[in-house]
Amino acid sequence: MRVIITGGAGFIGSNLVTALVERGDDVTVVDNFSTGRPEFLERAQASGRLTVETLDLLDGGPQIARAFAGADAVVHLAANADVRFGLDHPRRDLEQNVIVTHNVLEAVRAADVPELVFSSTGSVYGEAEIIPTPEHAPFPRQTSLYGASKAAAEGFIAAYAEGFGLRATVYRFVSILGSGYTHGHVIDFVAQLTDHPDRLHILGDGSQRKSYLEVGDCVAAIAGRLGQATGFDVFNLGVDTYCTVNDSVGWICDRLGVEPERSYGGGDRGWVGDNPFIFLDTAKIRATAWAPRWSIRDAVERTVDFLVEHPTVVASLVRP
Amino acid sequence: MRVIITGGAGFIGSNLVTALVERGDDVTVVDNFSTGRPEFLERAQASGRLTVETLDLLDGGPQIARAFAGADAVVHLAANADVRFGLDHPRRDLEQNVIVTHNVLEAVRAADVPELVFSSTGSVYGEAEIIPTPEHAPFPRQTSLYGASKAAAEGFIAAYAEGFGLRATVYRFVSILGSGYTHGHVIDFVAQLTDHPDRLHILGDGSQRKSYLEVGDCVAAIAGRLGQATGFDVFNLGVDTYCTVNDSVGWICDRLGVEPERSYGGGDRGWVGDNPFIFLDTAKIRATAWAPRWSIRDAVERTVDFLVEHPTVVASLVRP
Repeated sequence: MRVIITGGAGFIGSNLVTALVERGDDVTVVDNFSTGRPEFLERAQASGRLTVETLDLLDGGPQIARAFAGADAVVHLAANADVRFGLDHPRRDLEQNVIVTHNVLEAVRAADVPELVFSSTGSVYGEAEIIPTPEHAPFPRQTSLYGASKAAAEGFIAAYAEGFGLRATVYRFVSILGSGYTHGHVIDFVAQLTDHPDRLHILGDGSQRKSYLEVGDCVAAIAGRLGQATGFDVFNLGVDTYCTVNDSVGWICDRLGVEPERSYGGGDRGWVGDNPFIFLDTAKIRATAWAPRWSIRDAVERTVDFLVEHPTVVASLVRP
Repeated sequence: MRVIITGGAGFIGSNLVTALVERGDDVTVVDNFSTGRPEFLERAQASGRLTVETLDLLDGGPQIARAFAGADAVVHLAANADVRFGLDHPRRDLEQNVIVTHNVLEAVRAADVPELVFSSTGSVYGEAEIIPTPEHAPFPRQTSLYGASKAAAEGFIAAYAEGFGLRATVYRFVSILGSGYTHGHVIDFVAQLTDHPDRLHILGDGSQRKSYLEVGDCVAAIAGRLGQATGFDVFNLGVDTYCTVNDSVGWICDRLGVEPERSYGGGDRGWVGDNPFIFLDTAKIRATAWAPRWSIRDAVERTVDFLVEHPTVVASLVRP
């Protein structure tokens, strides 16, 4: 099939691109390369089945529809994925996650693409009352601009599915780890330990409970269902366990062979809007053919290995 | 107190403006007069406590914050309120309901206004699984661009409340009827019956079940809680009954003294995205001091009376 992947040069996108071209799909990456990296696409380029379009989706307009023309599906992954620093630039989530998604929906409609896949987040549940949190959890109260913007985009996609007959699948991810990972707690800790292996500062009290998924498992779920959507559907995507930040710190330090002195920011969360307990009920996606191959510990260790092998990724970590 | 009312020249806005100045509040209306009507503010103008600022909130920028400076609260009512024709202009709900609300939030933050009130809608529940629908209904699937856009705006308001300490109250209205009403099924039917009292065409099969609230009751709920918000809160707002479209048709015809032949579009809904059963659980707001004074039938009859007394409102009804 012919698949468009927005944000295809990013972390999850580039892993999906590689998986799709290797199984024989024709893939067009649409990316503005603001955070995407051309080198993440090198393996896929070798297949001869990859086209790259450098476009800014926020600009909207007919050039997006032209890039989408003739596609069997659009996988819309382009986004601002920074949950932690949203309050420092309150318009970014609106623009990159809501307005861009609306532009993608209009282009999908104009180009008559029959199927859309969207990468949402467990953050749309805010601080969920029910844990593990199912897709039909109570109407959430948003606690981050990132979660609010992804929930907003989901809503527009559902309304387009209802109004225009678009087939659409929304995946609500836990945090994704693995090869190509460029931001989040693992890189923060690896960067600190690269600078000073003897000490590590941890936001919150380290007891925050989070769930993670290896990017290969994430990509397998999306790729496996591509082309099978019949209407509008939502799936949580994650493993069926969680860990604490302290667990993860232990695995990272073991993998790096360091024993730093730990200091803590204190409190039950790392920052305003940090959710102290994220754990999704994934029974719905598990009832399909998909199951994760990697544990959270596997995913953390594979991420550490990737970062050790790519010191320039760690070195280029920017803090707003 | 000093209150800003966006969309204050509109239907609900002008009723709220009048109620607030008459109890002694200082009110600034911010409106672009795209659908607002200066004559709706005439009674309030006489109080000497009303200021009017003609501004387009979609433009954003510091002039909004300047208009908000020194306010105790902003009641944000400005919106595209057209649920039925959303699919004809898919960007309007995004712009008027999401981007405008974000601009209002930024101005509230810049001007350090401590409290925000937002007019949302029962449409955010999509086609609810639980009826009457409580505020904590299951995570909704949006079925209209209007509902999607209001849910999106709610999410950003909640995230601002969490991130910036804003106090905010969201009201999810059923359809509002009464003096100043300018669009919806009552005016559609009155317009038809003005043209030809002998026949009436009804979208759907007339069995759609809907709930309505008189604008005076709506305004009393908002005015009564203004200044009392302590955090972020959501209230459904409506009466504790519903009627069918056919019930409403009967009341309208009785009030007008006509007996038209009825024809039906057929099907269980009037248009794509029409919700065949809207009925909100209002136990939460009823547990406060508020209770509605008017029944649905009262509200329909008061609306017919208003339209009969204001034939220019009926004559200016525009269909996209």
